[in-house]
Amino acid sequence: VTAIDLTFEGARRGLALGGQPQDADEAAALERFALIVWSHLTEPGDGAAGRLVARLGAVEALRTVRGASPAGEYGLTADELAQGRKRWAPRLSSEAVETSLRVAARNGVRIVTPADEEWPGQLDDLAEHAPLCLWVRGDPSRLQRMSPAVALVGARAATSYGDHVALELSADLAGSGIPIVSGGAYGIDGAAHRAAVEVGGLTVALLAGGADRAYPVGHTQLLGRIAATGAVASEVPCGSAPTKWRFLQRNRLIAALASATVVVEAGWRSGSLNTAGHAATLGRPVGAVPGPITSAASAGTHRLLREFGAECITSAADIREMLGIGIGGAGVPQRSSGGEEDARPWTDDATRVRDALSTRAWRDADDVARRAGMSRDDVEGILGVLHLDGSVIRSAGGWRNARSTDAR
Amino acid sequence: VTAIDLTFEGARRGLALGGQPQDADEAAALERFALIVWSHLTEPGDGAAGRLVARLGAVEALRTVRGASPAGEYGLTADELAQGRKRWAPRLSSEAVETSLRVAARNGVRIVTPADEEWPGQLDDLAEHAPLCLWVRGDPSRLQRMSPAVALVGARAATSYGDHVALELSADLAGSGIPIVSGGAYGIDGAAHRAAVEVGGLTVALLAGGADRAYPVGHTQLLGRIAATGAVASEVPCGSAPTKWRFLQRNRLIAALASATVVVEAGWRSGSLNTAGHAATLGRPVGAVPGPITSAASAGTHRLLREFGAECITSAADIREMLGIGIGGAGVPQRSSGGEEDARPWTDDATRVRDALSTRAWRDADDVARRAGMSRDDVEGILGVLHLDGSVIRSAGGWRNARSTDAR
Repeated sequence: VTAIDLTFEGARRGLALGGQPQDADEAAALERFALIVWSHLTEPGDGAAGRLVARLGAVEALRTVRGASPAGEYGLTADELAQGRKRWAPRLSSEAVETSLRVAARNGVRIVTPADEEWPGQLDDLAEHAPLCLWVRGDPSRLQRMSPAVALVGARAATSYGDHVALELSADLAGSGIPIVSGGAYGIDGAAHRAAVEVGGLTVALLAGGADRAYPVGHTQLLGRIAATGAVASEVPCGSAPTKWRFLQRNRLIAALASATVVVEAGWRSGSLNTAGHAATLGRPVGAVPGPITSAASAGTHRLLREFGAECITSAADIREMLGIGIGGAGVPQRSSGGEEDARPWTDDATRVRDALSTRAWRDADDVARRAGMSRDDVEGILGVLHLDGSVIRSAGGWRNARSTDAR
Repeated sequence: VTAIDLTFEGARRGLALGGQPQDADEAAALERFALIVWSHLTEPGDGAAGRLVARLGAVEALRTVRGASPAGEYGLTADELAQGRKRWAPRLSSEAVETSLRVAARNGVRIVTPADEEWPGQLDDLAEHAPLCLWVRGDPSRLQRMSPAVALVGARAATSYGDHVALELSADLAGSGIPIVSGGAYGIDGAAHRAAVEVGGLTVALLAGGADRAYPVGHTQLLGRIAATGAVASEVPCGSAPTKWRFLQRNRLIAALASATVVVEAGWRSGSLNTAGHAATLGRPVGAVPGPITSAASAGTHRLLREFGAECITSAADIREMLGIGIGGAGVPQRSSGGEEDARPWTDDATRVRDALSTRAWRDADDVARRAGMSRDDVEGILGVLHLDGSVIRSAGGWRNARSTDAR
């Protein structure tokens, strides 16, 4: 069973977790399907799930969600396991898995797991936060050619200066055989992908939602071209919506897949600073392109230069130097960028709770907990805090996000 | 005798070096005038002269130039002293001193020496390369208020972006009481001085030529306004021409007078990188303002960020932070900017020799040696090298600089 042979029948077989596998192939198939099931139960970056699966294997780990108690250590405290079960169990649905696999098959999306040779090993640097599997539109074997690769990321609201620089850098690097990783968004991401495709280079877009969904819709054609020559990948199942939490976690995949991350243009609070923070955490070099100090669209890159010790990038040559690729250049140095303690101030549970709320429909705490992939207890605590600062509203029917027009 | 009491008669008296001073006041006056004489004998930054004067005092040091042998150590090797004499003796002329003092008196230029209370002590950080005296147009007591002060420097060929940033930074800092040091040139320097004057702040222009000469002439009015509220200063006597060597050495005074140096805009080989190099040598913080990587006028500031570990400056607040002036800020930290071994690749003897040559008139080696303030032996050696690479031309009448139109 390879990534390419994945069938709906296989999925059904994998879900019949009661039986014992007959041989090594069947055991591997079961493990693969259990991982796919796991990708439905968790929100990206769930460390407890990562540790449980790493310790027990996906199949055995799944038994613990169902309440069974396999022999051996869990790799989690009793409390972590109890909390995890509360998050995971409500999502355990064979229908959900069947549906996303059907959508994947229809859209040519293949699934790669760490057991597959197509798996990009650099993602394992994320340890317990590594994705359990990748859903890939395009030939997954292209993921094998991503070392060294450069992440070119930045603001959606790019200026013509930022667009110009992203196009120039990407065309130069991709044209010389260095793959470009980005997030498929408008602005800098789009310019980086587009230039790489134009020069016949390799580029990979990592999406926050399902790999089957063109997001943003205005990039439907561009994402199609990326999939045709490179890959469009996601860790969430087909059909999944791109939530804010998933965007932030998707950024860690961009940072982990690439050997270095360069932010071309970014506002003071741009999400691309989050990508840079992940890269620094992984000990990968971080670069930032300077711009006019009068431009708000460069405030974030200057912040990276000032506060995070990012490399000042003025040309594709500077990026090659950062990668250790020069005249007679060797491998990729794992240079630390240092000093990024505060790199992820925006990835918190409150974000996940707000993601799970609507501004129109009222939702009860159980519903919110399931959507957020969090325990009901955690969700209720956070809803209380958000209620105090007026960012969520409570009624007899449940909770919803405050609109900017709501009285505070 | 203070800086303000300097008279032509005093100068004449000081030059009568034969007699013994009658009292402490007269001894101080003699020492002062000997320093003034010394400022005629040396080119800026002459370390041997600096050491000799520091060891013997200016009066005794002057006797050694005349061939006398005072008791005690010279602070120089016999060879250094012999080479020094060859440089200094040809310039020993009471007429030259009388002339520059007369010009100084006529232009309201006063002389400050290290013995005066107006002397800015931070210049002593230059050790043997410290200036022997300063010729100051404007109230010299203002030099006492230069700590902390910021040097804002940059390209003459500034862009409108650079001009704008220099104006904004200078107006903000000078308006809040932080003096601005710069070089009086067109472009960034001019914008920095102008904004400081406009907001009623204190600014000091350090010139490469005599303080009496408005250089550039287009800044005659601006330099007048600077002198009226701040100071226009130089270490070379009134009437001295601004040569390339003196520009490069003037840069060390800018770096030494200020507590930190910020380069606003600079080409790849701009002289302001030389100023930044001097600041780093002195252990003073260096800042650089980023700009578009597509702008050649920002190539030098990006170089400072990449190669010299300069602070990325995006606002006046960033400069205050660099100075250690914040909310409840304390003194000026002597932060090292590190890694600037190659900071002065443009200050060499060849530059001084080329300065001393004309592109029209033929000059013999003795004449060139005197103008360059170097020994004839050194000059002849350098002329030989410059002749080989075609940058100087020899005839029966002597030497001249090659013009760009001369056949090579």
